[in-house]
Formats: sequence, C-alpha cells, structure tokens
Amino acid sequence: MLLHLSTWPEVETYLQRSQGMIIPIGSTEQHGPTGLIGTDAICAEAIAQGVGASTQAMVGPTIPVGMALHHTAFPGSISLRPSTLMLVVRDTLTCLVRTGFTRFFFINGHGGNIATLRAAFSETYAHVSDLNLPQGELVRCQLGNWFTGSAVMKLARDLYGDQEGSHATPSEVAVTQYLYPEARKQAALSPDVSPDHSIYGAMDFRRRYPDGRMGSNPNLATPEHGQQFYEASVKELSQSYLKFMNEL
Amino acid sequence: MLLHLSTWPEVETYLQRSQGMIIPIGSTEQHGPTGLIGTDAICAEAIAQGVGASTQAMVGPTIPVGMALHHTAFPGSISLRPSTLMLVVRDTLTCLVRTGFTRFFFINGHGGNIATLRAAFSETYAHVSDLNLPQGELVRCQLGNWFTGSAVMKLARDLYGDQEGSHATPSEVAVTQYLYPEARKQAALSPDVSPDHSIYGAMDFRRRYPDGRMGSNPNLATPEHGQQFYEASVKELSQSYLKFMNEL
Amino acid sequence: MLLHLSTWPEVETYLQRSQGMIIPIGSTEQHGPTGLIGTDAICAEAIAQGVGASTQAMVGPTIPVGMALHHTAFPGSISLRPSTLMLVVRDTLTCLVRTGFTRFFFINGHGGNIATLRAAFSETYAHVSDLNLPQGELVRCQLGNWFTGSAVMKLARDLYGDQEGSHATPSEVAVTQYLYPEARKQAALSPDVSPDHSIYGAMDFRRRYPDGRMGSNPNLATPEHGQQFYEASVKELSQSYLKFMNEL
Amino acid sequence: MLLHLSTWPEVETYLQRSQGMIIPIGSTEQHGPTGLIGTDAICAEAIAQGVGASTQAMVGPTIPVGMALHHTAFPGSISLRPSTLMLVVRDTLTCLVRTGFTRFFFINGHGGNIATLRAAFSETYAHVSDLNLPQGELVRCQLGNWFTGSAVMKLARDLYGDQEGSHATPSEVAVTQYLYPEARKQAALSPDVSPDHSIYGAMDFRRRYPDGRMGSNPNLATPEHGQQFYEASVKELSQSYLKFMNEL
Amino acid sequence: MLLHLSTWPEVETYLQRSQGMIIPIGSTEQHGPTGLIGTDAICAEAIAQGVGASTQAMVGPTIPVGMALHHTAFPGSISLRPSTLMLVVRDTLTCLVRTGFTRFFFINGHGGNIATLRAAFSETYAHVSDLNLPQGELVRCQLGNWFTGSAVMKLARDLYGDQEGSHATPSEVAVTQYLYPEARKQAALSPDVSPDHSIYGAMDFRRRYPDGRMGSNPNLATPEHGQQFYEASVKELSQSYLKFMNEL
Amino acid sequence: MLLHLSTWPEVETYLQRSQGMIIPIGSTEQHGPTGLIGTDAICAEAIAQGVGASTQAMVGPTIPVGMALHHTAFPGSISLRPSTLMLVVRDTLTCLVRTGFTRFFFINGHGGNIATLRAAFSETYAHVSDLNLPQGELVRCQLGNWFTGSAVMKLARDLYGDQEGSHATPSEVAVTQYLYPEARKQAALSPDVSPDHSIYGAMDFRRRYPDGRMGSNPNLATPEHGQQFYEASVKELSQSYLKFMNEL
Ligand code: NI
Ligand code: NI
Ligand code: NI
Ligand code: NI
Ligand code: NI
Ligand code: NI
Repeated sequence: MLLHLSTWPEVETYLQRSQGMIIPIGSTEQHGPTGLIGTDAICAEAIAQGVGASTQAMVGPTIPVGMALHHTAFPGSISLRPSTLMLVVRDTLTCLVRTGFTRFFFINGHGGNIATLRAAFSETYAHVSDLNLPQGELVRCQLGNWFTGSAVMKLARDLYGDQEGSHATPSEVAVTQYLYPEARKQAALSPDVSPDHSIYGAMDFRRRYPDGRMGSNPNLATPEHGQQFYEASVKELSQSYLKFMNEL
Repeated sequence: MLLHLSTWPEVETYLQRSQGMIIPIGSTEQHGPTGLIGTDAICAEAIAQGVGASTQAMVGPTIPVGMALHHTAFPGSISLRPSTLMLVVRDTLTCLVRTGFTRFFFINGHGGNIATLRAAFSETYAHVSDLNLPQGELVRCQLGNWFTGSAVMKLARDLYGDQEGSHATPSEVAVTQYLYPEARKQAALSPDVSPDHSIYGAMDFRRRYPDGRMGSNPNLATPEHGQQFYEASVKELSQSYLKFMNEL
Repeated sequence: MLLHLSTWPEVETYLQRSQGMIIPIGSTEQHGPTGLIGTDAICAEAIAQGVGASTQAMVGPTIPVGMALHHTAFPGSISLRPSTLMLVVRDTLTCLVRTGFTRFFFINGHGGNIATLRAAFSETYAHVSDLNLPQGELVRCQLGNWFTGSAVMKLARDLYGDQEGSHATPSEVAVTQYLYPEARKQAALSPDVSPDHSIYGAMDFRRRYPDGRMGSNPNLATPEHGQQFYEASVKELSQSYLKFMNEL
Repeated sequence: MLLHLSTWPEVETYLQRSQGMIIPIGSTEQHGPTGLIGTDAICAEAIAQGVGASTQAMVGPTIPVGMALHHTAFPGSISLRPSTLMLVVRDTLTCLVRTGFTRFFFINGHGGNIATLRAAFSETYAHVSDLNLPQGELVRCQLGNWFTGSAVMKLARDLYGDQEGSHATPSEVAVTQYLYPEARKQAALSPDVSPDHSIYGAMDFRRRYPDGRMGSNPNLATPEHGQQFYEASVKELSQSYLKFMNEL
Repeated sequence: MLLHLSTWPEVETYLQRSQGMIIPIGSTEQHGPTGLIGTDAICAEAIAQGVGASTQAMVGPTIPVGMALHHTAFPGSISLRPSTLMLVVRDTLTCLVRTGFTRFFFINGHGGNIATLRAAFSETYAHVSDLNLPQGELVRCQLGNWFTGSAVMKLARDLYGDQEGSHATPSEVAVTQYLYPEARKQAALSPDVSPDHSIYGAMDFRRRYPDGRMGSNPNLATPEHGQQFYEASVKELSQSYLKFMNEL
Repeated sequence: MLLHLSTWPEVETYLQRSQGMIIPIGSTEQHGPTGLIGTDAICAEAIAQGVGASTQAMVGPTIPVGMALHHTAFPGSISLRPSTLMLVVRDTLTCLVRTGFTRFFFINGHGGNIATLRAAFSETYAHVSDLNLPQGELVRCQLGNWFTGSAVMKLARDLYGDQEGSHATPSEVAVTQYLYPEARKQAALSPDVSPDHSIYGAMDFRRRYPDGRMGSNPNLATPEHGQQFYEASVKELSQSYLKFMNEL
C-alpha cells in the first residue's frame, strides 16, 4: 500500500492489522558524469515500493533530499543539514506515532544518511517519550540500506569486482537504468579507479574526486544488472522488514 | 528538465542559460473519505513537471511533506513544524544558490504551506546574505499556488459552484483521478456542505470537520475535469514562471 | 483593560468572564522619508487599545519589532528573523494559556508580519498540545490587520486612489499624525508612483525602492484623515473581535 | 530622540554624530496585589526616555516582555524563554549593527533579565563576528539596571529600610504611580516581610510567595517618591551612558 | 562519591538518602602567559571533589568547556555558545531529574559561566515543568563560585591586594600549582596592572589585554597559597551545599 | 601535551609544528551492576593521553557526557540529545579552527556516540565553510573508537569469546580496573548471556536488559587484561593518528 494513494479511512483500517510503515529515503546529489542526481531517491523509492508490495506494508512518502553536504560543490546537489534532517525525521515520526504507527523501517539509498538517521532515531525516541504519548515506549526504528544487503553486495562483487567503488557505483546506476531506461547517460570516464575514500568538506571532496565518482566505474552498469539488484534487494529487505515486525 | 533525471554536468550546462528552478511542494494529509493522502504532492509535482516541460525549466525534487499540523488528528497525515519546513527550504535553497541558481519558483499544492513558505523566503534571503555569497543579493523566490490561478478558480466555480469548498475539493481530487485513475476511491458522502472554514489546532479541526472535508463535495470530480484543471494550471503557471524569470 | 496597567488579581477576575486577549503587533522599520520608524507599532497599539476599550477586552503588551527583514538596509530598521518571531509568539501564548487565556486576537500593523504570524499560530497550537495542557485544544488565534478592513480600504481608496501604495502609505502616516501631531515630518517626495510591488531581500528592496516608499504618496496624509482611519478601524476590529469571541 | 518617532533619514543623520543606542527592557509579570503587571517595562521605558533626552541619545523600542519564567504561575505574567530572549537581542542588535550602530546601552527594569541579557551580549558579539561585518569588532553592550544605581538604592534604603524587599518593591511601584497616577491600586497587604529570596521554578515561586511580593511593602510607595526615583535614576544612568560612549 | 566511579545500583542506593548532586563546571581558556588553559576546570573539579568528600554528596561529571567566547582569540581557548551551554545544562539535569535527583549545586570556576548558568537554570525549570515530570516542581539549582566565597576573597586580598585582578589571578593559578606542581610555568610578566575590566568581543579582548591577564600578577602565586585557597573554598562551599540541601 | 596543562603561548608554539588535536569523548552511563558510570570517559581519556604522549600530539578536553539516551532509565546515566552534542562539537571545533587547528582526531569510548559524531563532523565542515574562514576547507575530523581496533577486538575475542557482549563489556571494565584498581566493584551476575542487541528507547532498553549489560560477562575482567587493552589500543590509535596527520 502506498500512503500517498490511500485515504485516511484506509489507513485507519490498515492500522488495525499493522503498525508498521516503510519510509524510503534518498538524496539529491551528483553521481558522477553519468549518474542521475536523483539516483539514491529513485532506488530507495522503487525498492521500498517493491518491499511494500511483497509484505503488504504501508509505504510512506519518500524523503528525497538527505544529508549530502560533501557533494554540494557540484551543481544541482542539495543537502539538508544533519540537524535539519533530524527534525524532519522527528516531525514525521511524531505525527505517525500520534495516530498509531509504532514501527518504522527506513529503506535508505545513500550512505551519507546513515549517521544522521541513527542520531535522529535516538532523538525521536526521546521526543515521543517527552510527549508522554501512551504508545511512545513502543516506537522502534530500523535502517535498511539496500546497497549493503549481503546478496546485493555479492552481486556487485561478482559483476564489478573492485570497480564497484563507493559512490556513483555501477550497481546503483544499473538500478536507475532499469527503472528509467530513457534517462541512461553516456560519457567517457577516466579508467583510473581512485583508491581514496576519505570524505570531509564539500570543497575538499570536489578537489579529491574531480568528476564526482569515488573509485567506481559506472560504465559497467546495464539495465539488466539493475533488475537483478532490484530483485535481490526487494527480497532481502522484505525479509528484514518482516523480521523487524515480528520482533517482540 | 527534471533535476533527479539529470547529471551534474547537465545542470552545469543548464545554468549557463538559466538560473531558475521550479520546486514542487505538496503535503501528506487526509483529504476526506475519498481523497488521496498524497493529493497535494501529486498535483504539485505533475503540474510542476508540466510547467517545466513547457518552459524548458529545471524542476527540482518535490517536497512531499509540508505544513499540515491541523490535519494530524487523522491517521496517515504527516506534517513538519513550520520551523522545520523553514529550515528545509533554507537548506535547499542555500545549496542551490552556492552552485548558481538564483530564482526559485515554488509550485504549491497546499494552502497550509503558504504562510510558512513566505516566512521561509524571508529567512532565506537573510541567510544567504549572512553567508556573504556573491550572488546572495540576486536570490528571489516566488510562490505559485496551482489552485488559486484565475483560470483554475473560474473552472472550479463553473463546474462545482459552492460545492468546491476549501479542502478535499473536487478540483484537486479530479486532478489526482486524471493522474492516477486506478486510485479513484468511492464513498458515500454527507451532502451537507459546511459553511465553516476556521482552522485552529488538530483536535479542533477533527471535531469541526469529522470526515476531513471542508465544505466540499469531491464526488463531483471526474478524471476529465482533472485534465482540464491540469492543463489550465500548467498554462497559467508557465506564464507566471516566465514572467518571474524575465523580471529585471 | 490594559494588561500592563492591571494587577494579577485583576487579571484573575477578568478571566472569570473572558478568556480573550488582544495582542497588538507592529514593526520598527523605515517608512519612507517622512514616515515614522514606529508607524506600524504606533497604529497597532492605538487601535488595539481602542478596540479593548469598546469591547471590554484585555489588551496585552505590544510586540514592537516584527518581521521586516526586507527593510533592514535602511538605518534604524529592526527585524526579528521569522523563526525568532515565531518563538516570541509561542512563548507569549504558552504563558497566557497556562493561566487561563485561550483566544488571542492579534491586531497587526504590518503586512510583513502576516505570514510569520500564521506560521506561529500553527506552531503554537502544536506546542500547547505537546504540553498536554488541559485547555490546550481550546486555543485559537485570529489575525486582524487594521489596514485591510473593508471600511479602512474603502476610505483609503476614496481619499488617495492609486496613491495609497503598499508601504509608507498615506493612511498609516495619517494615523500617526493623528496620534503624534508633534512628530509630523516634512520632505519633498518624488511624485512618481512606482508600480512595482515585489519584495525579496534587503539590498534588493533598497535598490528597488530607493527612498523606502512602495508606490505611495504619504504627503496626502492629514491628522484628520488619521482620525477617520482610526475610528473606522476600531469599529471594524471591535466587531471582528466580538465575532471571534462568540464563535463556538 | 525616540527611534519610533524618527524617520530613517533622521537616523542616518544621527549616526554621523553617534553610534550609540539606548534600549529599554522590562518585563510583563505580576507585581503583587497592587503592583502593575507592566511595572518593569513602564519604569525602564520612562527612564530610558529621560536619559535619551538628557544625553541626546537615540532610544530604541522597548522590549516589553523579558525573562520572568518564575512569575508565570500568576495570571497575566508572560515570559520569553531565556533562549528566545537571546535571539530577540541578537536579531535586534544585528540589524542595528548592519546600518551603523555599535554601542548599545540597555536600561533594564527587571532583575530576572540580567543573566539572560549578559549571555545574549556574548552570543551577539560572536554572531556579528561570524557575519564578518566590518564594524563587528566595535560592538559593545552595557547593562544599566535603574534599580541598582547607588543613588536609587540609597533613596530606597532611606525611604523604606528593610521593607524595600526584592520584588514588587515600593520603589518601582512608586515610579509607576508617578507615571500613571490614575492606575494606582489599593489592597490590604500582609505586614509580614518574608526574609526569603530564593527563586526556582514557577510553581515553587507561587507557593513560596503566595501574593507575589518578595519581602516588600509596596504600600509605602507614593507618586512623589516615584518622581524622586525617576530623577535620581535618569541622572545616574545618563552619567553611565556618557561614560560608556566615551570609553575608548 | 564520584558519579563516574560509581555503579548504577550505587546511585540507586544514594538516591534513597539524598537527591543532591554537585556538578563542577570550568572552562578551557587562556589564563595569561603562565596560567594553564584548564585552570578553571581543574579548580572546580578538585574543589567539588573536596566538597563531595566532606559532605557525602555525589559529584557528577565536570563540564570542562564553558562560556569563554571573549577568550577565543587566544590559541587553545574553547567556548560553547551560551545557547549551547544552556542545552548542555538542560539535557544533563533533565536526565538526572528523571531518575530522581532534584537539587543541583554547581561548583563553578569561571566568571564567564555565571550568566549563562543562571539563564540555563530558568530554562531547565521550565523544561522539566513542560515534561510533566512528577518531581519537576522540586528541582532547584544553586551556583557556588569558589572564587567569590568570602574567605577565599579575603585570603586573596590579604595575599595579593590589588594584584589579584580579575582574570588569570594569582589565586586560581595558586590552586593549579598546588594540584599540578609539575605544570608550574614561568614567564616574565609586565608589572603594570591594568585598571580596565571591560569585556566585549574576542578581538576587542585580545587588543585590550594583550597577554591575556586582566589586572593580575599571577607570579605571586605559590603552591602553598593554592592549598590555602583549596581548603578555604572546600570549607565554604561545603557549608553552602549543606545549607542548600537543608532548605525547605 | 595536554591542552589543559598548557599555556596559550605553548599552544601557539605547538601550532607551528602541528595543526592536529586529539579529543577524547566518553559517556556517563550505566555499565551494568559492576561497571563504572564513567567507564567510557575514563577509557577514552586515558587512551587519548597515551596516544598524545606517544605521538607528541596535543590532547584537548575530554567530552565526558555523550549520546546515551537509551541508558537514561538507569539512575545516574546522563545524555546529551544528539542535537545538543552536535552543537558542542561544532562550537568546540570552530573555536579551535579560528586559532589554527585543522585536524581533529576523536578518541571515542562509546558506541552510542558514533552516529552523532559523524553527523556533527558534517555539520561542522559546513559551518566553518559558512564562516568563510581562510583555513575552513582544510578542516578534517576522524573518529577512532578504541574498542574497534583490530588488535583490541582480537584480544577481546581471545580472552572472552562470546562473553564480550556489546555493552558493559569485560574489555572496557578491565581498562577501568587497570586505571582505577581501587574502584573495582563486585556483584553476582546472571550467567545468561542475552543474544539480543537491539537498541530503541530508554524504557525499552531497561526492560530488555534489566541489569544494564548487553550480552556481556564483565566478571571476566582483570586489571592485567586492562593493561593489555590499554597498550594495544594506544599502539593502534597512535598509528591511526599519525596516518591521519600525514594524509595529504
Ligand atoms: Ni548514491
Ligand atoms: Ni489538498
Ligand atoms: Ni507600515
Ligand atoms: Ni519589577
Ligand atoms: Ni579562570
Ligand atoms: Ni561503555
């Protein structure tokens, strides 16, 4: 079920059988010369909808802009401050807790979101406790990064070896090619794969990774690979979601 | 052009001919017994993409959750605090200003966002000025509410008269029916059209408007109407965008 | 009744018959070559006291500095950030709610405050709800802009036609002349009435409106006009206040 | 000169001879059974205007609501959070610094404001430094509490001895009687003078000081005393202001 | 008892006999050519532990970085913003209140912390009240500055006369020499004792006090003096703590 | 070198040869029936000082209270909100950057700090960039968790196998026994080792882990083990620090 295509009485009915919600979160940031700026949000949203379909779970609105400050020296990249993103998560979950949701499974498409999301979960537990909501102590959040599932990582290793890299990877580019074949981009890419993976400020990042990629060769991506990644991830994260919901 | 389907070099090229960006903003809130929770975001995003297509403008990521605190006593409604939404707007625009965008045209699907957006624009002008950015003084924001365009309002009046109401309106429901015909919902609706239009806190709102509608009869909506509204709005807002961009 | 000239036992007595409070809010900002920097606060305070006298309502302290960031490139202009003003309103109302006030009627002298006040009202409803105050759900705020009442606007149109403009208007200048005849200022004003009415950042505003006026000719103002505006506004806003208090 | 009765060109002229501004700050809080809720703002504003007149200094808008959280269990008391008041001071001074003011002399009517004001001064120095304003390093704030001047304190000791107390004092009540003789209130007061002077939270305060007074006997106040206090304070604070302005 | 060397069951036991906690707070800031950057934290922590030992009180973690913005133009100085320090105090006390502590005695080593701490106490009382904690109304904070005790001040006057000054004083340097004799530093100091004691922003401070001292001659300090100060302060503050705990 | 035992001229000298600083960060939280509440701060501080001694690096003040909200249902546990801790880190680093430090190596004793610290680093890079500091783009932060070094983890595995657990571990308890042998605590511990390792809110945590341990058997700890852990960690983190400082 997609929250945005549901009515409030449908949500009320859903809450009688489940208090779980899947929340996709992406980012809006450069992904190298050929990767789409929306890559992380596109992947997270599509996989979240796949997981929702396979588990009968409600899927909430995608958070399209995440924590990508280190990418913001490239045109078109947008980031929230970590402190802002924490407030977005806190506000979002607090509203949902008030009307009955208690378990939130974030399907995440961007490594840069992880730390801020974990901090936001802690802040949110404390916030709903402060509000003295009856169901406050039942609130649980879990983070599912589609790109770190074991099957997904094995597939990336098998297909791309050490050319997967850590940003603008062929695996995420492949998923976007599968979902938006009409938006596949071409560019000659330097074959050198940088061994660096440090991340500091935005200017330092652009100096260190001039075309935006971090050790990756996205030219290896194909839409067929993308479908494989999509299916592997939906399967893995569906299991994770169900395990999370069944946790006592 | 859609930002999320573009690469950063494509954005760099775009910036050479335009510094404008369209930003759709919706809400995730109850829309009565038959309206979709995503109505406002769905309408804003589709119309924004239509305007982008007709004006060659870049369309940024949709802000799917807005300021809808008064709806949050209904299941599935989500709202940012006004203070949080202001930070989201400030962070978003500041990133874009740093890499060259200066004119931001918000296509808005939700009346409840208007005040907070206007406050956020003021806060953002001051913030970019504080940062001493060279292009800071050139930053301009404009708000285009698709539902208050004169052609749209005339069409609503012609089609629905005093049954248009002010929330969960047949006009916005029609647009979602046009865009997502498979998600058209049915429910018997009380024929009484409430004359009230006060909005205070969330509990008061639910008491005052028990099924979520404010004086509207969304059962009058049809997908064909939706297409008319969509086209009227894209036309009106395209003109507004071009006028905004041409302003000295 | 004026809160600042009352004792707390008098307030306690007042609360037994009414839970309403009128709160004047102005601004401290340039008003062109001849308008007083305190114009908006002076008008709001005087009219609020007039409304309080005619309706037996308690009038709280004037908020003298509002949201006027766009005027701050002119010497002597002061503005709160929208986010700060929202906290001021939230703190003020929360204190008053704790001791029994529930209906707040803001009499406003400055267009720039409107958006921030509306956002602040939403933030406040949510805040008092978070605090689990017994009377939290009864809290209601209403905004009364003295300068947009229909009788006031008709009078301005009759007296000044298209020379009323939208800032440093003859109508508001007239009210200050009526209240502070000794502070009437003289200056030659350019006769051109700018048709522009865009508002962005502070530097842009000063460039666009070099002497601070927006399409107005305040030299048309007289103290006699001021009295007319004052009386029309007190009458209109007294009716609005009573209607607000009688609302179920 | 009063800022609110000046035009921006008059402020521009003033800045050529002085960069100083006097800012009155009061509070809106209970002052016992007979003291006015506006006592602290009334005293600060009147004395500030007296100092402005005697020193040719510009007097800015009064901050009418201060830090009085401990009084908020009494009806009609209003307080900003310390964190909010700090933002109000920061925003106010930052605007004034941008257009040329650099020395700010706060004339304060309320002991509860002192700590927050001092903290706000530190925060403001750092803030204007962060903004890289050319005149940022010249900014100086000073606090003048009218009630702690040596002549004022001697007068209070001479007139009231140990019945001056520390809140709702006869000295401050006298000043309000001098300024608003028509608002003089009468009530029988318990003759006991509490020796306590601890201040913690609002509920504790009301329990500890049931009628709001702290060890004071305001029935000793007369309008004539009020005039003496007013004159003594204007004289003392005028000297302080001039010394502050002449400091290298 | 030292909190950091206790287990939670030991704290639980302690709470059965006392709800008091001593919290040392210092600063990390320049103390002239020979004073240690940690002087204020070192003194506060040692004296707090002495007071804890003599009164059987629990001593919490030292806050090592305080409000020292005016010192930050000297290398190695660190300061929190007042607004940040207020949040640190609020968070710290709120946690402790939740598990049973209600009286907090801050032993402070730095004058610059005083205003911010007092503001933080007010903010905290309001915050715990907002949380509707059962013991919220019992929360009390008190500030004990070791350097302003009457015995300590008399000793400083006797030993150093007008060379005590107001920053990098021989008395505080002596305490650090007593506690860390191996870290005693030597430097020739200008014999002039500046009569100034104004504090504004950081750049102004360094210009005004080029070597960091304010009117002091720390070369007069000896470890033996330090022991005397330590003992005098432990004695004075132990009495203050017990009085605070016994207050009804 | 320890910052708190240095003078500012010594820091100035240090900055000529290095711009690096080590910052220990711990937590103040329950560590089961026998672990010290200060365990994480004690370990981080001692190891940081060891690393400082072996690498000639400056060691800054320990942050004693971290992000431990999930432990706060146990008496004596204290936590900052993630948002507060982020401000503490931001303020601390900003001060140090202003006077010349650019590389910050955090030696961390608490898993709960990791996410918030990483978010704080991102926030800080953006903040110093906003301030337009000349050295802003050189700022780099790195996180060294003493308990996740490979030699430390191997030692824990060798000594404790699956009884190491994930909170109140024998390894961290051993380090505190080595450093504070006099504070070694005894208690009978349930032999069951819980396989759970989920962390949500504070009440949930206490219900899930009734005595505070997470799958650990701290009774296996000895001071001799502690010395081994200490030495292994100092060696590992010294190498990490030097590598970080030598990074181009
Ligand atoms: Ni990505
Ligand atoms: Ni809608
Ligand atoms: Ni005006
Ligand atoms: Ni007073
Ligand atoms: Ni000191
Ligand atoms: Ni630990």
